[in-house]
Amino acid sequence: MGLAKNAANFVALSPVSFLERAARVHPQRAALVYGDLRQSWADTYERCRRFAAALSARGIGPGDTVAVMLPNTPAMFEAHFGVPMNGAVLNTLNTRLDAPAIAFMLQHGEAKVLLMDREFSAVIAQALSIMEGPRPTVIEVEDETAPPGQPLGDLDYESFLAGGDPSLPWHLPSDEWDAIALNYTSGTTGNPKGVVTHHRGAYLNAASNAIAWNLGDGAVYLWTLPMFHCNGWCFPWTLALVAGTSVCQRRVEAAQIYALIREHHVTHLCGAPIVYSMLINAPAQLREGIHHPIRGLVAGAAPPAAVMEGCETAGIELTHVYGLTEVYGPSAICTKKPEWAALAGDERARLNGRQGVPYPLQQDVRVLDPLTFEPVPADGETIGEIVFRGNVVMKGYLKNPEATEEAFAGGWFHTGDLGVLHPDGYVKIKDRSKDVIISGGENISSIEVEDTLHHHPAVLSAAVVAQPDPKWGEVPCAFVELKAGQTVSEEELIEFCRSRLARFKAPKRIVFGELPKTSTGKIQKFALRERTRAASAIE
Amino acid sequence: MGLAKNAANFVALSPVSFLERAARVHPQRAALVYGDLRQSWADTYERCRRFAAALSARGIGPGDTVAVMLPNTPAMFEAHFGVPMNGAVLNTLNTRLDAPAIAFMLQHGEAKVLLMDREFSAVIAQALSIMEGPRPTVIEVEDETAPPGQPLGDLDYESFLAGGDPSLPWHLPSDEWDAIALNYTSGTTGNPKGVVTHHRGAYLNAASNAIAWNLGDGAVYLWTLPMFHCNGWCFPWTLALVAGTSVCQRRVEAAQIYALIREHHVTHLCGAPIVYSMLINAPAQLREGIHHPIRGLVAGAAPPAAVMEGCETAGIELTHVYGLTEVYGPSAICTKKPEWAALAGDERARLNGRQGVPYPLQQDVRVLDPLTFEPVPADGETIGEIVFRGNVVMKGYLKNPEATEEAFAGGWFHTGDLGVLHPDGYVKIKDRSKDVIISGGENISSIEVEDTLHHHPAVLSAAVVAQPDPKWGEVPCAFVELKAGQTVSEEELIEFCRSRLARFKAPKRIVFGELPKTSTGKIQKFALRERTRAASAIE
Repeated sequence: MGLAKNAANFVALSPVSFLERAARVHPQRAALVYGDLRQSWADTYERCRRFAAALSARGIGPGDTVAVMLPNTPAMFEAHFGVPMNGAVLNTLNTRLDAPAIAFMLQHGEAKVLLMDREFSAVIAQALSIMEGPRPTVIEVEDETAPPGQPLGDLDYESFLAGGDPSLPWHLPSDEWDAIALNYTSGTTGNPKGVVTHHRGAYLNAASNAIAWNLGDGAVYLWTLPMFHCNGWCFPWTLALVAGTSVCQRRVEAAQIYALIREHHVTHLCGAPIVYSMLINAPAQLREGIHHPIRGLVAGAAPPAAVMEGCETAGIELTHVYGLTEVYGPSAICTKKPEWAALAGDERARLNGRQGVPYPLQQDVRVLDPLTFEPVPADGETIGEIVFRGNVVMKGYLKNPEATEEAFAGGWFHTGDLGVLHPDGYVKIKDRSKDVIISGGENISSIEVEDTLHHHPAVLSAAVVAQPDPKWGEVPCAFVELKAGQTVSEEELIEFCRSRLARFKAPKRIVFGELPKTSTGKIQKFALRERTRAASAIE
Repeated sequence: MGLAKNAANFVALSPVSFLERAARVHPQRAALVYGDLRQSWADTYERCRRFAAALSARGIGPGDTVAVMLPNTPAMFEAHFGVPMNGAVLNTLNTRLDAPAIAFMLQHGEAKVLLMDREFSAVIAQALSIMEGPRPTVIEVEDETAPPGQPLGDLDYESFLAGGDPSLPWHLPSDEWDAIALNYTSGTTGNPKGVVTHHRGAYLNAASNAIAWNLGDGAVYLWTLPMFHCNGWCFPWTLALVAGTSVCQRRVEAAQIYALIREHHVTHLCGAPIVYSMLINAPAQLREGIHHPIRGLVAGAAPPAAVMEGCETAGIELTHVYGLTEVYGPSAICTKKPEWAALAGDERARLNGRQGVPYPLQQDVRVLDPLTFEPVPADGETIGEIVFRGNVVMKGYLKNPEATEEAFAGGWFHTGDLGVLHPDGYVKIKDRSKDVIISGGENISSIEVEDTLHHHPAVLSAAVVAQPDPKWGEVPCAFVELKAGQTVSEEELIEFCRSRLARFKAPKRIVFGELPKTSTGKIQKFALRERTRAASAIE
């Protein structure tokens, strides 16, 4: 019938297309700002074409892995285009990992090339020395603001780029299902799993970010979220789609963030609750001279009411999103309702703190009974597993068909998070399945206890885990970090919880001190759980 | 390797998915407003599910054609979901066509069902009487505001819907390449061609509309653009994506438009320049009480500077987009640059009046040499054919493989429009290839002459076509509609053009009077060309 696909009407969906468009529409607009650097979209496109061509010149091609161990610098942004424009797969390494973990990833992912920053040369040198199999070519990205360290690279990034001809044609993937990135999850036990994502999903989630956030042409985005984390939730590609400006920085510190917001008129940023908590608790004089509205996406943990309210006061409009590496970062969004504006702050924070509804271009998020795979009733009470389905879901785990099959059981991606469905169709996490505390046969949501603790005025941050108990099996143990200058006793806090929760849900023990956090700002519950186990064993 | 597509990570892209999401996220928000009707997204979803189930109950299924002859009423909106949710193909008929054209389309498209409004019962009755082949089931959409006419339907729309069970499951297409719509182009010669579009492209262009226009959650959209025209540029699906409200209306009249804008706080609308011309030339008192900003997309013809400037004054922020039925409506956009704001109004209107750059999710628009298919230089002068490539390009023409092959020659969709590429990467139309006037071997762009005429203060609208000439082959003949109460002589206008254009480009003749327009507000140049030929034959 002459209605088949052809070169005119069918093109592989790939987010690298957005770079070509940004360079055409806004060639002179700044794509990247870093220190004194202002790099236009035209220059960024040329450098990324050099990047792709230089990889090709070294024999790297479709399906090969290119790893990077970089902070949020321009080279990290460029890698998100240069690598997939060559058909290779971008493996962003978590910069806070230790050498054995990095060695495992380089080996398991079979990285042919490794881009690195001198800040991490010690851990990289150690990882290279202990890994088995072929050693990747190491390219060092020179940056005068990097802390001192041993030079390590086989060559430097600018020399590498100089070896690529920017006039050579680059190619879209032959299939939009081709891998674009490999991201290792920070597994708490056993080896990390390598999440493989595809061009189609990255394209759609990049567009979904723009739609979800109503992100207009010319947004100015500050990189507080690590780009190594789910490819910065696909935002490098989103920023190309809207031809926005990326303000890069090596570290996440309140003074620098406010200075960059002021200087570059930053409009958008993303991060875990701890980032916003840091911003709203920073000295007020840091904020002087900032009068424009700022919009933030928050994920990684439900933002405590105090953070939601503090941001409101500070002129940061927070929206809560939820996702995992397997779904390219944000995959559900707590879409705000106009009628919530009239509610009390506490109630509004409760509604805004939910995981919500499918991200615009994600197909579905549901809560399923773990045994029958049937949807739980929308009663806000029946707990099931949160699952996703759609085009923004990974291909699977690299070289791990068993884990892949398990993750996709029944035609849904299983998050491992337990939640409920509220009557208004919004999903609310109750707990990670492994974080639920089972006490005398009753389930206790660690999140519910933490939320209660967060309401105490002296509490900065709280994490609740199961502590082995000879009578009840498990009991809640709370780790609490207090606000500077505040004090409260263990007894007082336990009583505070008992007055607000069913008695069996109140912590039996409170441990005060700083909470251990992952590189993405999540509290490391597994470390706390270890501590309670060790303590129980001793007792 | 366990990285294949499965039910969890691969879903056909289809814009009907957006309806399910809108009904989940904003069930009580108004999806449709029409007269006294306020219909929520939950109700709209239920009615569309009824629609799909009722089609199935009548034996209609995947690949079958459902035609509609409807004004911009709620049923027209519902058809954009109910029909593809059943797997059938939506054929929206241009309501201004005559019976022979409608008969051709019903027959050629093999419509199994025809939804119609009583306003068109006479033409439909005649079309049914002259068409060959099986007669479609006719469903009349009752509407008390319809002008009087003969009842015609085999059944009425509400009874039809009542025959569908909204609890039955509906299905995404088995393949996102499946046809979603059939739109006949208003060919000027020969039979119209049936443009077949697919779910994938409709999904992407619906998302592209939201991104291009930064269309946020809860937009209020006024239907001034006919939904029969390229499926309303995919905006029914865009409005589901952003859960916006569609304000429907049967006619496009300034008084009603302003009343609806005021009452419903309309934020967005689309249309041909004539719609905006009508709005800015309407009596000022109609605009009283409207103080919020309104954003308009304009297409169908480059908006004259007077329209761009008039809209600025009237608080309507216009953006020019360009496309054709074959590319689902808007497929290029004249993205504004912040630096244009400082330019003189005339110069800004010239820049804003260009066809521009690819729409966000369209892959590419170029200007190619018609012989070599090589890109023309970006000099703003070398004329070539404007071509598109990407995922928002039709499958092809129904039952017309020759025309399809011709349209896709060389791996590009050929628009038939002639244009240039400006040094800033923006495309500018110079003319339809068939509208170019060849005078003494020199090409004259009819658009250039029209633009000049539009600068004369007495001219409301102008169209320039070729008039056969024994000496020069062709010469420009201008048809001019004057503003109410204005006069100007033929000689004066010709002299006005001569003072601004190369002498051979000035019209040789001016004909004053109302200009014939198509149903979408485009001036019918073929009719004017007929007139000049007839006149020449007589002379």
